[in-house]
Amino acid sequence: MGGARSDRPATSAKRAAIGEFELIRRFFDRGPARRVELGIGDDCALIAPRAGRTMAVSTDMLVSGRHFLPDADPRSLGHKALAVNLSDLAAMGADPYAFTLAIALARVDERWLEGFASGLFEIADRFRCELIGGDTTAGPLTISITVLGDLPGAVALRRDRAEPGDDLWLSGEIGGAAYALHRRLAGDALAPDDPSALRLDRPEPRVALGIGLRHLARAAIDLSDGLIGDLGHICERSRVGARIELARLPIAAALARSPAVDPVREALAGGDDYELLFCAAAEDRTAISALGSSLSLPLTRIGAIVAGQGIVLHDARGAPVAIDTKGFDHFG
Amino acid sequence: MGGARSDRPATSAKRAAIGEFELIRRFFDRGPARRVELGIGDDCALIAPRAGRTMAVSTDMLVSGRHFLPDADPRSLGHKALAVNLSDLAAMGADPYAFTLAIALARVDERWLEGFASGLFEIADRFRCELIGGDTTAGPLTISITVLGDLPGAVALRRDRAEPGDDLWLSGEIGGAAYALHRRLAGDALAPDDPSALRLDRPEPRVALGIGLRHLARAAIDLSDGLIGDLGHICERSRVGARIELARLPIAAALARSPAVDPVREALAGGDDYELLFCAAAEDRTAISALGSSLSLPLTRIGAIVAGQGIVLHDARGAPVAIDTKGFDHFG
Repeated sequence: MGGARSDRPATSAKRAAIGEFELIRRFFDRGPARRVELGIGDDCALIAPRAGRTMAVSTDMLVSGRHFLPDADPRSLGHKALAVNLSDLAAMGADPYAFTLAIALARVDERWLEGFASGLFEIADRFRCELIGGDTTAGPLTISITVLGDLPGAVALRRDRAEPGDDLWLSGEIGGAAYALHRRLAGDALAPDDPSALRLDRPEPRVALGIGLRHLARAAIDLSDGLIGDLGHICERSRVGARIELARLPIAAALARSPAVDPVREALAGGDDYELLFCAAAEDRTAISALGSSLSLPLTRIGAIVAGQGIVLHDARGAPVAIDTKGFDHFG
Repeated sequence: MGGARSDRPATSAKRAAIGEFELIRRFFDRGPARRVELGIGDDCALIAPRAGRTMAVSTDMLVSGRHFLPDADPRSLGHKALAVNLSDLAAMGADPYAFTLAIALARVDERWLEGFASGLFEIADRFRCELIGGDTTAGPLTISITVLGDLPGAVALRRDRAEPGDDLWLSGEIGGAAYALHRRLAGDALAPDDPSALRLDRPEPRVALGIGLRHLARAAIDLSDGLIGDLGHICERSRVGARIELARLPIAAALARSPAVDPVREALAGGDDYELLFCAAAEDRTAISALGSSLSLPLTRIGAIVAGQGIVLHDARGAPVAIDTKGFDHFG
């Protein structure tokens, strides 16, 4: 083992030696596993699930130039790569447990790796989600994380359980990430602690909310594609329609006062907010409001699930409104 | 939802709409989950592990131009992407169960996707390993698979359990993939059914062998980096040394008779064979040979685990031999 192999064509699956292993050791291996039976360093990690628990599994891949700008702060990127996966667990009501990381790096840049690992482990530790394995390789910067969470029995917040008459709820506020992206692409520098920049760069997965909703919400999804697109997933899977009261939308303040864009349109179509959109029976309104208060997280009723299909937007007077809010297509 | 968004900058995490969802539906979604509680189509897949079982988890990432040639046959690539992950399960003694697929595609090429999916599902079905979720995005062709397997209790074939005096065993034969790679890079076309080409393009994960070894082997690893490199992982993790009898190596016939390369060196350092290397007590020789016979898979004793550290190579007369056999380094 060890040393560079210039005689070895770089077209062989799963090959590795000291550079790669040293990289893992230095930046990603933090010693014996804490939450699982066996962590980094073998052919597989080993997990002994608790009896009666359900495991939730989700995978997201982030590609440089597509999901983040090539000069993105590595620390924020480490945060975001795991945060978007934790957000999927939150949307299912699952407790974070463990994750694997596959990363392709154009080159070994130690300062970049230090930043990335510090952002990654800061959020991993905060949510007690342990890195248990993965893969590192050379290639265009690409990050793929698979996250594992757990749930008691059958309380998962699925997309296909919404019912006509359900209230439609939204956590926090929306449109901040879309606003920050517009500003940045227009060449405006945003302070790192600007609330919109933080929303875009360091989204906060609503894990505690998802867990609190296990016995309150019927269906949930996290907002990654935008409110209309993600509500459309719930409607399609649950075979229902929905009504949104535009005046109720909790639009981020910076977006709401922006002259350059249409705030309502951006709030409906802008992605990357990672708030939870969920459906619950009207009789649970008080309990849901109390949950929001206990988490210091505003929860807003923005509309309702209705029979039929399609999403109808209502203005403050209750009149239907037409707005062009197509979803985003990676291959469009 | 639906339609292309030319006004939307492509720098936002986890966004998707009809192109991506149609792609998933057409090529990757095969209806309701069979082995898990909930498969493709929600924020997470849901798995209800059986009581008393251990779950094995492994992730591999394959990058175009690095792990496979850009013009690789998509059907073979679909096979190989899952096969290298199933090989990790085999090396742990785990039963394949489910997997997630994250794939970045430079463009939507329907014929390519049909080929890839057919190769992927052919091997997935053969090993009853169900696709339960993942991610598709635009980007340089990159495939990341996370595979889940299961095991009864504490019988996993870890790397850190080898003991001095153990026999060192190898399944099948080695060097075929390295030989095919040399030929192909030298511009020689190999017939698709050439044994060496099949070894490189469509490796066969030794799943049944891994399961059969659960109570026979003490330690195991699959050969991806090459015999010396992978044996080094067992030695390092088990804090032992090893001795290899070169005359016993089951070298692929095409490599053994090749005038262009050093067969022994290639057999020691060449990767991508995906055979199992395992360590077992001498008293289990008969049972191991019987297992090999029952699987119609040659199992060869190629040496032994010894106290101390380092790997010593012996020639047919028992004399130590020095061969330069560095491992492969993705970042070298």
